[in-house]
Amino acid sequence: MGNRVFQPLFWANALFTLYFIFTLSPNAAAQTKEQGVDSAFIDRIYDQSLTNGRCYPWLEHLCHHIGHRLSGSQSAAKAVAWTKSTLDTLGLDSVWLQPCMVPHWVRGEAAQVRVVGSKKDGPYPLAALALGGSVGGKVQADVVEIDAWEQLDQLGAAGKLKGKIVFYNRPMDATKIRTFEAYGGCVDQRVGGASRAAKYGAVAVLVRSMTLRLDDFPHTGSMHYDSAYAFIPAAAISTLAAESLSQTLREEKRAKVSIQLNCQTLPDVASSNVIGEIRGTERPNDIIIVGGHLDSWDVGHGAHDDGAGVVQSMDVLRVLKTLGYRPRHTIRCVLFMNEENGLRGGKAYAAEAARKGEFPLASIETDAGGFTPRGFGFDGEEAVFGKFFEKIMTYQSLFEPYGLKLSKGGSGADIGPLKGMKGLLSGYSPDSQRYFDYHHAESDTFDKVNKRELELGTASMAALIYLIDKYGL
Amino acid sequence: MGNRVFQPLFWANALFTLYFIFTLSPNAAAQTKEQGVDSAFIDRIYDQSLTNGRCYPWLEHLCHHIGHRLSGSQSAAKAVAWTKSTLDTLGLDSVWLQPCMVPHWVRGEAAQVRVVGSKKDGPYPLAALALGGSVGGKVQADVVEIDAWEQLDQLGAAGKLKGKIVFYNRPMDATKIRTFEAYGGCVDQRVGGASRAAKYGAVAVLVRSMTLRLDDFPHTGSMHYDSAYAFIPAAAISTLAAESLSQTLREEKRAKVSIQLNCQTLPDVASSNVIGEIRGTERPNDIIIVGGHLDSWDVGHGAHDDGAGVVQSMDVLRVLKTLGYRPRHTIRCVLFMNEENGLRGGKAYAAEAARKGEFPLASIETDAGGFTPRGFGFDGEEAVFGKFFEKIMTYQSLFEPYGLKLSKGGSGADIGPLKGMKGLLSGYSPDSQRYFDYHHAESDTFDKVNKRELELGTASMAALIYLIDKYGL
Repeated sequence: MGNRVFQPLFWANALFTLYFIFTLSPNAAAQTKEQGVDSAFIDRIYDQSLTNGRCYPWLEHLCHHIGHRLSGSQSAAKAVAWTKSTLDTLGLDSVWLQPCMVPHWVRGEAAQVRVVGSKKDGPYPLAALALGGSVGGKVQADVVEIDAWEQLDQLGAAGKLKGKIVFYNRPMDATKIRTFEAYGGCVDQRVGGASRAAKYGAVAVLVRSMTLRLDDFPHTGSMHYDSAYAFIPAAAISTLAAESLSQTLREEKRAKVSIQLNCQTLPDVASSNVIGEIRGTERPNDIIIVGGHLDSWDVGHGAHDDGAGVVQSMDVLRVLKTLGYRPRHTIRCVLFMNEENGLRGGKAYAAEAARKGEFPLASIETDAGGFTPRGFGFDGEEAVFGKFFEKIMTYQSLFEPYGLKLSKGGSGADIGPLKGMKGLLSGYSPDSQRYFDYHHAESDTFDKVNKRELELGTASMAALIYLIDKYGL
Repeated sequence: MGNRVFQPLFWANALFTLYFIFTLSPNAAAQTKEQGVDSAFIDRIYDQSLTNGRCYPWLEHLCHHIGHRLSGSQSAAKAVAWTKSTLDTLGLDSVWLQPCMVPHWVRGEAAQVRVVGSKKDGPYPLAALALGGSVGGKVQADVVEIDAWEQLDQLGAAGKLKGKIVFYNRPMDATKIRTFEAYGGCVDQRVGGASRAAKYGAVAVLVRSMTLRLDDFPHTGSMHYDSAYAFIPAAAISTLAAESLSQTLREEKRAKVSIQLNCQTLPDVASSNVIGEIRGTERPNDIIIVGGHLDSWDVGHGAHDDGAGVVQSMDVLRVLKTLGYRPRHTIRCVLFMNEENGLRGGKAYAAEAARKGEFPLASIETDAGGFTPRGFGFDGEEAVFGKFFEKIMTYQSLFEPYGLKLSKGGSGADIGPLKGMKGLLSGYSPDSQRYFDYHHAESDTFDKVNKRELELGTASMAALIYLIDKYGL
């Protein structure tokens, strides 16, 4: 039985063998030799990054001398000026600023969030940060804890959220091995929770911080209002604060929370992306981008998010330049402004690329922290992606010595607007276990970044760019 | 031409296809089903570890309530008592202490190492730690920097090391992607440098710390004297101190160094390994070990080295027990005493295993830090290893979702004495980039360990043990 059933498979396999023998073998030797050349050059890239890397001292400067740099802030302007002047020292073919207008949200005085009216515990403060984009305001009200959207809709439909503070307490799922999946599974509370609660008459929202740690750092991040509903104050509270509040609410029905947020949105401000490039010798209008985002939230140093990506992107060009590499395509470092709360830099870049008729051959974003490299994810328009990915996968063995895995997956927010232009998109994927410990929190500071891990990331991206530049797509 | 040359390959391939179709396919379905069972159980192991793990709070206790625990110290005795009493709470089949005598080296007052007689810089201190096992002593002498053994032998043969302090300054090689290779490439200076210098009449040695960071933490570690030569004082200095000293020596020929070490070796002390086991239902005399070492150097918390391995090993048994797993073979957690300066625990364990006629089916050591998992290395006696490794490699796909790679490689010091007994040896391999930042230094503290990374390690080892137990070797 097996005989008859499997014959077609047998012959298909045999024919494939035949095809392989007669058509590919002559190339195989040349391929092996070329792989040796590539492997040697990639070794040099890693050696250069690990022994002479600039990304780590650059990050130190960005963190300690400029600090966090929210879009529209003075420190964001300083970061633009300093990264441009640093790129100016690298002997690139050109370095320039690409203007964009950015939102200008300001936090003002620190948020005051307190549990009041709890007899057992007495009034106590909750570690809180206003969410980016929230309106300011002062409210005191009963609190309703919500762990699922259905629950919100049921209580809302029954009129039970009117005048209340909604407290979203659905945690990140610790069993997800890739922590970005766990983040993706609950960030909807932060982004859309305010308007979904305002729809039912709620007066403010508190959101459990998006982190897998149990500690007292609140994690801020972007939120959006639906203009159909009232704009109500929204703040993140630390996971420890969320646990305390939840327990108080279970034990004492009369507990209320008072919230005072002092944030506001000011008029848009002129800002810019920072771009440097090594011009391609053969196809200068086909662009290979490596980029991260220059803005950060207004807490900590924005070290992993995304200081790391900024300095790595800059250092990728320095490494290739230092090794005397003359690219066929133009290799460009793009430091995007305003990833966190508007994506204005990414949109401005894509608009100008389209206007100039450039082809974004490959765009690599590093915005997942400066941790030890695990691989790259690849994405693109369906029509061309399969072909690109097949070619990319032939490089897998060259990355084995460095522990990187190439796979289909997400890329990055800033390069998202380029997707329609039919190039390859890629997201650099460092190890994700520690990322959300620090993400958007006071604890995202320089000391959390390891020098070698950062440098290995730089080298990994330079290696990928070398291969894409050499062989095209 | 290609036709004639490649025909044998073609037919070999075709026959293999045939063989595959007719002989393996019936098993393939069963295998796939069984893989589903395994994959589901491994998922449960990871879930249990990530949502209910005990290793992190245990590590907190070990670090903050017991602290570092050098062999022979009171805190080592406390660590024995506390880990035993903790294992006692897990409902294992038995928990016991396995006695061994251990060396008792004590550091005494902090080392004093100073550069003197430098006109330009004035006297200045070098951050130093006596090496473990060093004799105490007080010397002041000229310093000769040595970067290669040939240089030592040439200068020594020329009589130029007599009465001098030898300063070994060969750094770890930053270009090695696996940092353990870089460590292996220069730890000979620390281990054997004193006697090799004493052979030529040197009066003391200073060794550049074994770390890839440039900072001011000296890193201690074991050293051995060759009884043919004088026992001279030996200390590690921080990498920053090594750079300063090197520069001073280049600029000022008259600079000397004064060294005072207050360490000494006291008589051996009674101590023990701590062992807990779940007895095998089918082959109780075939043992699967998971273990780390309970002792540490007498600085910092010994958090990554090897507090992490201790609590992971304990938690592996708890996870399997909690999931109701009834093993075919005996699964044993062994907390070895005295890995750092004598390996007495490992030797005592192997001796008793041999005496009892136990078969160490598989022994897994976790002694490379509590970092994010990258894989396992496997090793064993040549006669049986190939067969074992082939079987182990069939599990590779089950580890893909967790990012682990199975490969040939080193195992661990404590399980080394078991090698002759023809079982499988394995070393758990977490990411190695940060390990030597903290190794044997004051900075190896609890806060350097990430909860999820630690828990993922526990789960990875429990998963490997499950597969080895289920399918044998």
